Amino acid sequence: MAGKIYIVGMGPGFKSMMTEDAFNAMEKADVIVGYTVYIDLVKEHFPNKEFFTTPMKKEIERCRACFDFALEGKTVAFICSGDAGIYGMAAPMYELLPEYMNNSSDFTGDNLIVIPGVTSAISGAAVLGAPINHDFCLISLSDLLTPWEVIEKRLKAAVMGDFSIVLYNPSSKKRHDYLEKACDILMEAGASKDRACGYVENIGRVGQNSHVCTLLELKSTQVNMFTTVFVGNSNTRIISDKLVTPRGYKI
Amino acid sequence: MAGKIYIVGMGPGFKSMMTEDAFNAMEKADVIVGYTVYIDLVKEHFPNKEFFTTPMKKEIERCRACFDFALEGKTVAFICSGDAGIYGMAAPMYELLPEYMNNSSDFTGDNLIVIPGVTSAISGAAVLGAPINHDFCLISLSDLLTPWEVIEKRLKAAVMGDFSIVLYNPSSKKRHDYLEKACDILMEAGASKDRACGYVENIGRVGQNSHVCTLLELKSTQVNMFTTVFVGNSNTRIISDKLVTPRGYKI
Repeated sequence: MAGKIYIVGMGPGFKSMMTEDAFNAMEKADVIVGYTVYIDLVKEHFPNKEFFTTPMKKEIERCRACFDFALEGKTVAFICSGDAGIYGMAAPMYELLPEYMNNSSDFTGDNLIVIPGVTSAISGAAVLGAPINHDFCLISLSDLLTPWEVIEKRLKAAVMGDFSIVLYNPSSKKRHDYLEKACDILMEAGASKDRACGYVENIGRVGQNSHVCTLLELKSTQVNMFTTVFVGNSNTRIISDKLVTPRGYKI
Repeated sequence: MAGKIYIVGMGPGFKSMMTEDAFNAMEKADVIVGYTVYIDLVKEHFPNKEFFTTPMKKEIERCRACFDFALEGKTVAFICSGDAGIYGMAAPMYELLPEYMNNSSDFTGDNLIVIPGVTSAISGAAVLGAPINHDFCLISLSDLLTPWEVIEKRLKAAVMGDFSIVLYNPSSKKRHDYLEKACDILMEAGASKDRACGYVENIGRVGQNSHVCTLLELKSTQVNMFTTVFVGNSNTRIISDKLVTPRGYKI
């Protein structure tokens, strides 16, 4: 019989920010599969476990390895940082599922189980105060898998709807100026240069630090791939160095 | 000395979906404050704890009670369902903070600590498959604190940006037709009537159930206040009864 595959959102890093379900899925798994960096974050908790890693850009090989392990009868924990279903591995796993269901009567949809986790929009927001305490959008600035025109369209729509905005993947070695470009698009679309913003590096990991600033200041900030960026809506304010988007209560 | 106030995201309900940090904050608190329904969900784990509840629409009284307990020197866990900073109590607490800082030198920003939790966009997505595996918006349909025109503007912007959309508070006794109205706005803004959608009731609680459907079918679905609704983007598909928004990997 094919084993179960738990697609696990492990949260930002620290065990204390995982759910019990996430930890238990790893504990009962015969093999833990994931990107090298994430495996390194959980390895200490499971010294005698079998691990399988693939490097960046080898995500589909990683998915297929999970199915192969499961077909051998193994229980698999496929770990993703943050949540498993936000830019995570849940979608490609479900996209691959019909192929494995066709090839093996052993495999059904019940073999895949998604365990939700705390994504960095949420954990970063907690560090900054309450920046997404009303309607918000989450947008990745990575154009590896998404055309830049789509990203640009979404940035404009986010301003049009006056959403608070969380930006994932704001920078990388090859894309060092993407946050600057994004800030320009937001301002051209009507967001004030004084819009309250903030960013957090290494959320829930060693070296966590955070800053609040204006949108104009954000534009000239050099962030890295471990930074999560927050742009407030038109009502967002900085209160006691925290970034706060009111829900609308009469205070 | 004033006590610390942990503003805690308790996740959807089950203890297994809380983070360790969330549980520990409640455990070390002298008093747990919250809306009656949420207190009932955690009471069993803390049989000897002091609890303080206020009914719905008494949120600011609840916030002030937390500050008052803290000024007595008590450690407070202020619990919110899902995450503390998504339509939660983190924002009003920070809005009230300057008043308490002015009145008591005992009170600083360090007294407030937000503990993130799994919001129902994430836990509901895990039940449905992977509906928010790419850029998405979160919109509340409640117009108690937000003018309906703002909600309408955001629904339109969400379609313009081709975001996956998660709808919170899709219905209540007084607002039984709000989801129907929202679906009409989405379709008028250009979302196809065949757009892949889904909804989950009682996520992470007794009685959990989920459905996938088209946007047109969603329009005539009677949901309740414990339902979280998902509208896919133009690429979202139903695969093996799961709602899946591709991230863009070449499969």
